[in-house]
Amino acid sequence: MEQKICLIGKGNVGTSLLQLLNEKKEEIMQKFHVDYKVIAIFEHDGGLINKTGINLQEVLNKGKDFRELSYWNPGIKALKELGNLDANICIETTPTNPDNAEPALSHIIEALNNKINVVASNKGPFYLHYEKIKKLAQENKCSIRYEATVASCVPALSVKEGLIGNTITSINAILNGTTNYILSRMTSEGIEFSIALKEAQELGYAEADPTLDIEGYDAAGKLVILANELLGWSRTIKDVKIKGISHINAQTIELASVDELVIKHLAIAENGKLVVEPRLIEKDSPLNISGTLNVIELQTKYAGPIILIGRGAGGFEAASAILNDMINITIKQK
Amino acid sequence: MEQKICLIGKGNVGTSLLQLLNEKKEEIMQKFHVDYKVIAIFEHDGGLINKTGINLQEVLNKGKDFRELSYWNPGIKALKELGNLDANICIETTPTNPDNAEPALSHIIEALNNKINVVASNKGPFYLHYEKIKKLAQENKCSIRYEATVASCVPALSVKEGLIGNTITSINAILNGTTNYILSRMTSEGIEFSIALKEAQELGYAEADPTLDIEGYDAAGKLVILANELLGWSRTIKDVKIKGISHINAQTIELASVDELVIKHLAIAENGKLVVEPRLIEKDSPLNISGTLNVIELQTKYAGPIILIGRGAGGFEAASAILNDMINITIKQK
Repeated sequence: MEQKICLIGKGNVGTSLLQLLNEKKEEIMQKFHVDYKVIAIFEHDGGLINKTGINLQEVLNKGKDFRELSYWNPGIKALKELGNLDANICIETTPTNPDNAEPALSHIIEALNNKINVVASNKGPFYLHYEKIKKLAQENKCSIRYEATVASCVPALSVKEGLIGNTITSINAILNGTTNYILSRMTSEGIEFSIALKEAQELGYAEADPTLDIEGYDAAGKLVILANELLGWSRTIKDVKIKGISHINAQTIELASVDELVIKHLAIAENGKLVVEPRLIEKDSPLNISGTLNVIELQTKYAGPIILIGRGAGGFEAASAILNDMINITIKQK
Repeated sequence: MEQKICLIGKGNVGTSLLQLLNEKKEEIMQKFHVDYKVIAIFEHDGGLINKTGINLQEVLNKGKDFRELSYWNPGIKALKELGNLDANICIETTPTNPDNAEPALSHIIEALNNKINVVASNKGPFYLHYEKIKKLAQENKCSIRYEATVASCVPALSVKEGLIGNTITSINAILNGTTNYILSRMTSEGIEFSIALKEAQELGYAEADPTLDIEGYDAAGKLVILANELLGWSRTIKDVKIKGISHINAQTIELASVDELVIKHLAIAENGKLVVEPRLIEKDSPLNISGTLNVIELQTKYAGPIILIGRGAGGFEAASAILNDMINITIKQK
């Protein structure tokens, strides 16, 4: 079975996916009898199209200089070409504008309107326009999956299929590696927020402008997606009460420590409410994970808590989540 | 869509499942358009059969006295009746004999030979005769699922579907709540093994004869199933190198503690080898969970570790895993 793939966004995640597809081509063929043929790769300033299948090794060999390839077509736009490509799956990995979810939102809508299945890795479209996207996918009888949007490769969304006979009642999670790293370092080393932030920036865990992370906006977006998917809600990020961690100081953390407590930046969906804020938890709670890891605790009606932990970021981490989604879409079509 | 269910074993797990099916009947109908009709319930000494559907509320109201029901048929055997029932799914929840996996093994084989899908909650058949059962299911084009056999409701087996595009390379797990409780108490309280074991027995966490748990046989059986399912191996429990925890003393634990280490009873599948034994791990490792919880760490090729934590035992916990399997089987048939 051949599946034609259109990739929009050739950054870290997009490039990792191409590498994964190239590396796992034979394994995927053997295990799932699927041949993923990448027929288009778009960037903001042009694209590569080859309807008989792009030579991935050639593109990967070029590294960041893929625009030097003879068939690089400057100026063409994914949005304009999507309808003519006859693709089976559109992979959307462009950076999200957190205010309007563009250009990802338009790409997703255009793909669905052309009856192309979608796998997306950026959360903006889903924390802003969840209902609209879901409805459009349904109307066009398309699959849309976006595992990579929450905790990257951790199967936070697909776990639903393994808990289908249970009832998930609430969510407690740590969904941002940057704030978790900062709080972990403040706790273990007794250092102040500003020092820990600087350390995180030097190590590449925090952006030069870390506002979206430390003020909780990033975690809030992911929480909305979790709540909509796992609890069946229909919310947007505007429904989340958000508090950041920049006012936490070393003294507060030390005070908590006396009572065997730690401060964590929790994302909580419970009793109809969505909250992201610093909270005290017990030191031996499974939520007390350190470093940049993410953790998601699902309270269930029939089986207590189910906890998932893993890396929340990284090119290959997101790419492997995308590949999971692609294969799940293809298998369910058969 | 109607699905006729035959339940073998009405102990804690079987009864919890009946309660779950009764409670969730309308929800399952609404969400999945499936009507699970229990047409037979077998115990070792007889059974209830009603081909138009057993009244679950009536059976549940009777509690342990369900044999008083007018249509209780003493002496009938599941093994003999299975072929005449026209059931769609057979649920096997009888206690396993760890040496020969009976009577579960015979029930499973009989069901598959009659082209009945199987959901099983006891691990014996799978750590002793995995290959044989899988082959038989394939030959008869039947589904067989057994999520409840490993870490109960934790989606340790179905997580495979959420990691389908990745490659799981090794497993590190704590799969026995009894030994984990004992080691956790020895660590937190500085008490000796015998005291902690007695405490676990008083709380109902350990059996009167705790040998299978503390000598590692229980964990080894679960490890075999995990390795066969997630790593694609074909092993039996005879391939596991097993060491128990009864020789661990308070002094050893204290010694480890000096270097910020704890002793955990790990089940490991790595480099082609299966091992269950006490191991030193770092205090802040995600594997360092306390109490009776189970934890499963999957190392993946493309996304580092993915960790699952949850309750490893309990009637409703197992029953909800069984219901997950039932729904997954039914949905995939459609």
